[in-house]
Amino acid sequence: MRAGVFDSGVGGLTVVKSLIEKKIFKEIIYFGDTARVPYGVKDKNTIIRYSLEAVEFFKNFNIDILIAACNSVSAYAIEEMREVAPFKVVGVIEPGVKALQRKIDDKNAKILILGTKATISSKKYEKLLIKEGFNNLISIAPSLFVPIVEEGIFKGEILEVTMRHYFKNIENPKAVILGCTHFPLIKDEIQKYFKSAALIHSGEAIVEYIKSNYGYDKNFSKTDLKLFASENPENLKRVARLWLKG
Amino acid sequence: MRAGVFDSGVGGLTVVKSLIEKKIFKEIIYFGDTARVPYGVKDKNTIIRYSLEAVEFFKNFNIDILIAACNSVSAYAIEEMREVAPFKVVGVIEPGVKALQRKIDDKNAKILILGTKATISSKKYEKLLIKEGFNNLISIAPSLFVPIVEEGIFKGEILEVTMRHYFKNIENPKAVILGCTHFPLIKDEIQKYFKSAALIHSGEAIVEYIKSNYGYDKNFSKTDLKLFASENPENLKRVARLWLKG
Repeated sequence: MRAGVFDSGVGGLTVVKSLIEKKIFKEIIYFGDTARVPYGVKDKNTIIRYSLEAVEFFKNFNIDILIAACNSVSAYAIEEMREVAPFKVVGVIEPGVKALQRKIDDKNAKILILGTKATISSKKYEKLLIKEGFNNLISIAPSLFVPIVEEGIFKGEILEVTMRHYFKNIENPKAVILGCTHFPLIKDEIQKYFKSAALIHSGEAIVEYIKSNYGYDKNFSKTDLKLFASENPENLKRVARLWLKG
Repeated sequence: MRAGVFDSGVGGLTVVKSLIEKKIFKEIIYFGDTARVPYGVKDKNTIIRYSLEAVEFFKNFNIDILIAACNSVSAYAIEEMREVAPFKVVGVIEPGVKALQRKIDDKNAKILILGTKATISSKKYEKLLIKEGFNNLISIAPSLFVPIVEEGIFKGEILEVTMRHYFKNIENPKAVILGCTHFPLIKDEIQKYFKSAALIHSGEAIVEYIKSNYGYDKNFSKTDLKLFASENPENLKRVARLWLKG
C-alpha cells in the first residue's frame, strides 16, 4: 500500500516514525505545509482551505490512504477532505480516543487533553470521549510547547517552567492525550510531570487503528519514504534524519 | 497623508502606537497577514511573494507611503515592493540604524541585534552597521520571544528563564536593537536584563525617519486608523484596543 501523510509542518514525522517502526506500509509520501505552519493558531476555514489543497497535492501520487497527522486538520477538515479525495482519509483524533479506551476502563478517570488552540476550540476529542461515556475531562492548549520543540528544546529549565505554567492547577490525570504532533517529542518530560498518567500518542494510536480498519502490508523489508515540503525541504529532510534514526 | 502599515500579524501595532502618539499621519490603513503569520521563520522567496501580495492590497487605498513594520519583510522584500508599488515604501531597518547612530557615538561599542531567524540570516542590520563603521556586533534570533509575547506573557518566570537561555553568553551591550515588532512589548524586561543598554525600538525609529525624509501631517486632532487582517480581524481589533490605549 502507498500511504500519504499530511501535516502542517515537520511534526507529522512523529507519526511517520511509528508507521515505519511498526512496518505498516511499503511506501509513504509525506507532505509538510512548512510555508504555512503552524495551523494550530489558524481558524477553521483557513485550515479547511489548506487541507483541500493538500488533497490536490496527493492526487498526483495514486495513494491508497491519506493520514492527516496534524490534530488541527483532524479536528476540522476530515469530512471536507473525504468529499473530494479519491482515496481514504483518516485523522488522528478518533484513533487517539480508541487508544485511550484500550488503556482506561474507568469512565470517571480524569483525562487531560493537550492540543493546539484550534484542536482544543474544536472540542472534537471531548465530543468523542463524552460519547464513549467519559465524564471527567480537562482540555488545555499549552501553545508554547510547539515553538519550544521547534527550537530543538526537549528538556531542561524552559520546558519545566512552561509545564508548571500550564499544568499548575491540574492534579494526577489518569491519562494525557498528546493531541499535537509535536508533543510526543517531549513525552518523557510530560511523563515525569504526571508520573502515573498513561500517555496517548497519535502515532501509536494510528498504527493500531489502521491495522484494525484498513489492512496493511506484510513481508517487506523497509518502508520507502518520500518527503515533500511547501518550503525549505532541506530542513524537513534534516529533521527526518534526526527523528527517524534508530 | 494616508499611510499604510504592513505586518505579518498583530505585532506591527507597536509601530502604529508610535505613529499615533507622535501624530504623524491623519490616516493609517493597517494590514496584518494573520493567516500566514509568522514570517520570521519563512524563507526569502516566500516573504517576498507575500509582501508583493500586500502591495496589491494597498493599491486599493490610494496611500502616500507604505511602512513595512515587519523586520523580516524589511530585511528581504523592500526593493521588490518598490519596483511594483505606486507609492513610497519604507522598511524599519535603515531607520533603526539611524536611531542607533543618534544614541551611540563610539564605533567600538558592543551592539546586540535581536531579530527573527529570517531577519538575522539576512544580515541586513549588520551590513548597514558595518557600513557606518560599527565593528562590535552580536546577532541572535531568540525565536521563543515571539510566541511568548503572542501568549500574552510580558514578564515573569518563563520570560526570565528564556532570556537567560539566549543571553547567557552576552555581557553588557551598549545598545540592543529590538529587531522584531514583538520585542518592544517586553522591552522593560530586556532593559532589566541589560541595565545600561540603549534600546532601539522600530516604532520610535520610524517616526524620526519619516519626519526627516518624507514630511508629515500637522494640526489634526486624531489619527484615523483602519484595521484589516487576512484572518480573524476581531483578534487584531482586540489586540489594538489593548495595546493602543492610553
